[in-house]
Amino acid sequence: MAGSTLGNLFAVTNFGESHGPAIGCVIDGCPPGMLLCEADIQADLDRRRPGTSRHVTQRNEPDAVEIVSGVYQGKTTGTPICLLIKNTDQRSKDYGNILETFRPGHADYTYLHKYGLRDPRGGGRSSARLTAPMVAAGAVAKKWLFEKYGTTFRGCMTQIGDVQIPFESWDHVANNPFFAPMADVSVLEDFMDALRKAGDSCGARIRVMASGVPVGLGEPLFDKLDADIAFAMMGINAVKGVEIGAGFASVSQRGTTHGDGLLPTGFMSNNAGGVLGGISTGQDLEVSIAIKPTSSIISPRQSIDTSGQPSEVITKGRHDPCVGIRATPIAEAMLALVVMEHALRQRAQNADVQVATPDIARQRS
Amino acid sequence: MAGSTLGNLFAVTNFGESHGPAIGCVIDGCPPGMLLCEADIQADLDRRRPGTSRHVTQRNEPDAVEIVSGVYQGKTTGTPICLLIKNTDQRSKDYGNILETFRPGHADYTYLHKYGLRDPRGGGRSSARLTAPMVAAGAVAKKWLFEKYGTTFRGCMTQIGDVQIPFESWDHVANNPFFAPMADVSVLEDFMDALRKAGDSCGARIRVMASGVPVGLGEPLFDKLDADIAFAMMGINAVKGVEIGAGFASVSQRGTTHGDGLLPTGFMSNNAGGVLGGISTGQDLEVSIAIKPTSSIISPRQSIDTSGQPSEVITKGRHDPCVGIRATPIAEAMLALVVMEHALRQRAQNADVQVATPDIARQRS
Amino acid sequence: MAGSTLGNLFAVTNFGESHGPAIGCVIDGCPPGMLLCEADIQADLDRRRPGTSRHVTQRNEPDAVEIVSGVYQGKTTGTPICLLIKNTDQRSKDYGNILETFRPGHADYTYLHKYGLRDPRGGGRSSARLTAPMVAAGAVAKKWLFEKYGTTFRGCMTQIGDVQIPFESWDHVANNPFFAPMADVSVLEDFMDALRKAGDSCGARIRVMASGVPVGLGEPLFDKLDADIAFAMMGINAVKGVEIGAGFASVSQRGTTHGDGLLPTGFMSNNAGGVLGGISTGQDLEVSIAIKPTSSIISPRQSIDTSGQPSEVITKGRHDPCVGIRATPIAEAMLALVVMEHALRQRAQNADVQVATPDIARQRS
Amino acid sequence: MAGSTLGNLFAVTNFGESHGPAIGCVIDGCPPGMLLCEADIQADLDRRRPGTSRHVTQRNEPDAVEIVSGVYQGKTTGTPICLLIKNTDQRSKDYGNILETFRPGHADYTYLHKYGLRDPRGGGRSSARLTAPMVAAGAVAKKWLFEKYGTTFRGCMTQIGDVQIPFESWDHVANNPFFAPMADVSVLEDFMDALRKAGDSCGARIRVMASGVPVGLGEPLFDKLDADIAFAMMGINAVKGVEIGAGFASVSQRGTTHGDGLLPTGFMSNNAGGVLGGISTGQDLEVSIAIKPTSSIISPRQSIDTSGQPSEVITKGRHDPCVGIRATPIAEAMLALVVMEHALRQRAQNADVQVATPDIARQRS
Repeated sequence: MAGSTLGNLFAVTNFGESHGPAIGCVIDGCPPGMLLCEADIQADLDRRRPGTSRHVTQRNEPDAVEIVSGVYQGKTTGTPICLLIKNTDQRSKDYGNILETFRPGHADYTYLHKYGLRDPRGGGRSSARLTAPMVAAGAVAKKWLFEKYGTTFRGCMTQIGDVQIPFESWDHVANNPFFAPMADVSVLEDFMDALRKAGDSCGARIRVMASGVPVGLGEPLFDKLDADIAFAMMGINAVKGVEIGAGFASVSQRGTTHGDGLLPTGFMSNNAGGVLGGISTGQDLEVSIAIKPTSSIISPRQSIDTSGQPSEVITKGRHDPCVGIRATPIAEAMLALVVMEHALRQRAQNADVQVATPDIARQRS
Repeated sequence: MAGSTLGNLFAVTNFGESHGPAIGCVIDGCPPGMLLCEADIQADLDRRRPGTSRHVTQRNEPDAVEIVSGVYQGKTTGTPICLLIKNTDQRSKDYGNILETFRPGHADYTYLHKYGLRDPRGGGRSSARLTAPMVAAGAVAKKWLFEKYGTTFRGCMTQIGDVQIPFESWDHVANNPFFAPMADVSVLEDFMDALRKAGDSCGARIRVMASGVPVGLGEPLFDKLDADIAFAMMGINAVKGVEIGAGFASVSQRGTTHGDGLLPTGFMSNNAGGVLGGISTGQDLEVSIAIKPTSSIISPRQSIDTSGQPSEVITKGRHDPCVGIRATPIAEAMLALVVMEHALRQRAQNADVQVATPDIARQRS
Repeated sequence: MAGSTLGNLFAVTNFGESHGPAIGCVIDGCPPGMLLCEADIQADLDRRRPGTSRHVTQRNEPDAVEIVSGVYQGKTTGTPICLLIKNTDQRSKDYGNILETFRPGHADYTYLHKYGLRDPRGGGRSSARLTAPMVAAGAVAKKWLFEKYGTTFRGCMTQIGDVQIPFESWDHVANNPFFAPMADVSVLEDFMDALRKAGDSCGARIRVMASGVPVGLGEPLFDKLDADIAFAMMGINAVKGVEIGAGFASVSQRGTTHGDGLLPTGFMSNNAGGVLGGISTGQDLEVSIAIKPTSSIISPRQSIDTSGQPSEVITKGRHDPCVGIRATPIAEAMLALVVMEHALRQRAQNADVQVATPDIARQRS
Repeated sequence: MAGSTLGNLFAVTNFGESHGPAIGCVIDGCPPGMLLCEADIQADLDRRRPGTSRHVTQRNEPDAVEIVSGVYQGKTTGTPICLLIKNTDQRSKDYGNILETFRPGHADYTYLHKYGLRDPRGGGRSSARLTAPMVAAGAVAKKWLFEKYGTTFRGCMTQIGDVQIPFESWDHVANNPFFAPMADVSVLEDFMDALRKAGDSCGARIRVMASGVPVGLGEPLFDKLDADIAFAMMGINAVKGVEIGAGFASVSQRGTTHGDGLLPTGFMSNNAGGVLGGISTGQDLEVSIAIKPTSSIISPRQSIDTSGQPSEVITKGRHDPCVGIRATPIAEAMLALVVMEHALRQRAQNADVQVATPDIARQRS
């Protein structure tokens, strides 16, 4: 209720601040008997880790995860899994002067009005650093879903600033710091270098998808699979828009085009993005999100101080010039957490359902 | 958990099917002592009502709401408010042949796989008719928020199919069946007439906003105000995308542009759409949604039947050629429900918070 | 959150007041495909119905249940089941003078302080009449649990006032208005007749049990099966105590006696009441509850009025001299609702669990 | 949903096992701006700590609490407070042989059937050691409630085995290891010494109360204050019964006696235990719980092994011969957590309520 828990049956409770001693999460509801060790989780954390290229923040955090509970002799026990990630590279002095001034685009103003006080060190609780425990929890969900249903998750960047990124192949995504599905990312590197020199920042558009999702996940009316996806994606820092399938393009589509026809061998298209009536069709889940430009920039901005007087803000410190660059594994993790939640729900209420009609999405894949 | 309840502190539980005896909802958590009668609710229901122009479904439903509980001597008692809306114009025979075939773009396929059976009468539970109780509940939330904080809600259509709708004035919205903020809607009428003749359907883009929202609503990390808005909007039938503030346009903005500067007299812009760090700034909440084309069209579509064999589908019956036309009051209601929930939450945890910093958004308005 | 919903996966939302037009509930999460009609529910409602003997309130309510939604062609669809029970025999004038005075033992004082106003007609929302929808919902749960697991629920009165009721046979329970497991209830009738003449009321002790409960239901640490049972039982009007298994008698037991030994053919005793570590053993669930004397009595009581001045209260109207008399089917229903909730939860998280160890409780039964 | 979180607005998520590296909890929803340091919490943990007398387990745990998050410059920030308690004195070898055998009265049998595997080290997740984080969380709730409303919590033992403990004074409770409200506890010491020699264990009865509780806390119908208290108390290991106010004694009371009369100067008695209609009256909350005898005893017991074959069990290791001895601070903490939750809820929905009627309970105290 106070907003730090995602999910109910696979409930992930997140804690910590950017510059506190540690961040982490508690996963309650992971099915028992699954093999799980730190290495299973670390791989995704490493994909999100800061300090790995000149295009992201230079804060050096190993983000080493520790399993504190819930695993016995290498297997999950069905009881809460606490994951702890120590903060090791805090430099709070970098942020010294922001306590009295509200940085435009940041949560400073709203946190102060909501809570009456705020932890200004690195953004405190509002820092994107708090996505790390979600990536860790997502890795647990991914593992279970893969072992149980063969579900896989992928993501890539499709736009950075005003640069459209053509889709060449999923194979390229792991080979560049942008998660771009293209072989030669020099255009992106040049763009980012120029942006940094200008003391400015930019937004990005990220695509994530899940393949091998069981048909039938999602609840009408409100806990629709796509509604929960939108909720989870908007929970990622800096996200300002979410699309499922054709998204905003569906506005100018006609019904004769948009509605995905069905053949005995599978769906004829996927404008739905894998969800009809809030329930998964078994096709790929297709999600796209908009990430706003980083608010922490060294260019001076007009603002006010805590007494309401005019003040100029320049944000120094170590920041990502495009927070979207590291957002792909985060969005994948959030998608995995939503699918996991609904996979468990589906078993609760509909475990006995048997249908004669073939699962046409699965046939094709 | 099974998806029919929205909210926790102001919890709205929705029930009913398109062609059952009645639909309705139970509101649990409405503060006591507010004057409330059916007329307070009926006004918004009438804005959403079918059969009011040639551009929407001809199903004739008065959608008369009845307060079954929770009000004593004209005042809310703080106990559950049950609202009942009788279905009066069911023609289930119109839908007779869709039981064996899956309509493309509809929930037929997913409901059958999820539940093993489905109510095919008018879409059963997946019908957009189930938004009526939410409009009713939203009217209750709107009333409380207006009396308590002066909060108001407005919405309009900004695009239908590929026709962009220029914003002229809020005053026009109530004067045409499209909720279009323009004086002369003949271009929209012509477009819709041609579409109907073609036996096709189209999508729409709707904008909704709330003014006079208190600063401080919304919870980090997950129950962010914008995350809950996205969740609620995706819960509306046919919605495929949600934007807050600048939305997808923020991808190509620069940080120097996007971050809304602050002056002692107020924010300098509203790219944030009224939410920073998941918490309301006190500025207008600005939300935009994409609605897909109606799936029920009379043009023949390729599909399969429940045994998996090829089949052609033509959907007769009474349908909206653009479900977006009646979506504005629905989206307003969903937004009101989210703001209401967070207004109550804010009181729970932060009732004692006092801040010296002025509320600059409220100063301006 | 506002207290009118019981359960999460099998969520029952209750609405209505004693003297409003109707009471009812919405069940969200009932698995699809189960045959269900009004008669399945009416039987239990009739067991709880008022006006059936001289020992209970003479209010004459048929308590006829109507299924408003969630059932199609005689089968549950997996969507919300709304059950409606009309109030037909309100005599609000009977309660005219209690608006200004607080009846001792009643919720008048607390409702006024909580809500600032209250519906005094028959106790409004605090009336035991609101248990009727729970009996209806419980009947749905009982039916599913019986068909799925063979689970059955029984209950009886074990004490009324200071009269201990010896257990002779379950067969007698249906043959007297007290739900007493004894053949000759004349001692109880004499006791009640004397009590009524004295213008007084008394408490009762009720025992309920469930047989054929699957092993493994209940969650550590907090949503223990017995914790949820205690929660549900305390949710029944007038309940002041709950025991599981040996209950308070376990205080003076020794460990050598209390701990139920295990044999290959089953447990050797059931001091645990069917729950160990918060999880069902598969043995009978054994629950006992204490119900306080009815607060509505015609003997004069000292009280104050709403201005804080001394006042004498005499409660006329139609009241049960022992609310415990009709409590047995209510307690059974609440127990069934808890078992149902946990049966669904168990499937969500532990559907894949397989154990070599035999289910010794089931062997025996 | 998986049972490790207590509360919604003041939500405490518990994690860890008896012999893992650490146990702890995350508190989400603590209001901001309260001074909080480890010492505020440690005092209650020390009252519950093992190894402090010969009558409790000799496991030597300092139970030193560490605040990992949610506090900045000595004040709560309104974001999650993670509390960590390291386990330092595990001797898992003591428990070596219990993996293959089910200890009577323990959760071994049920955990295995629920999860398919179990952590046998010290009872794993089912150990009473997991109450330590709740005592820590309860200390935070107590502090806030005291500062805000002056609410205080007390508890004592009222019976151990078959020895009734007379109430002499609250002052004695802190001066003996039993939390007994009597000056000379030699009778209790003798009783316990004999019990240990006999290799047996016994139960206990604990009374807890809260004074200075605001009027109006608790929700009808289900989230009644007393229902939540019963739920929380049954969540404590080994509890088999819960009473509110007169409890089971109310069965043989008459209505003329039980219903607490009201005078302008206060209630005339407290059979209600501070709750009417599920809502606090402002009087002392009075709760009594039954704790079963410790299941871990060295006397041999009949049982079966995991293959279902007969087996004899003797439980060595370090155990409390009466788990009730250390239960008083645990029960106080659980009561404080429930009151805290409802205090926040009350503000959410009823913050605006004003009543002319005097708060008679508060007048007296």
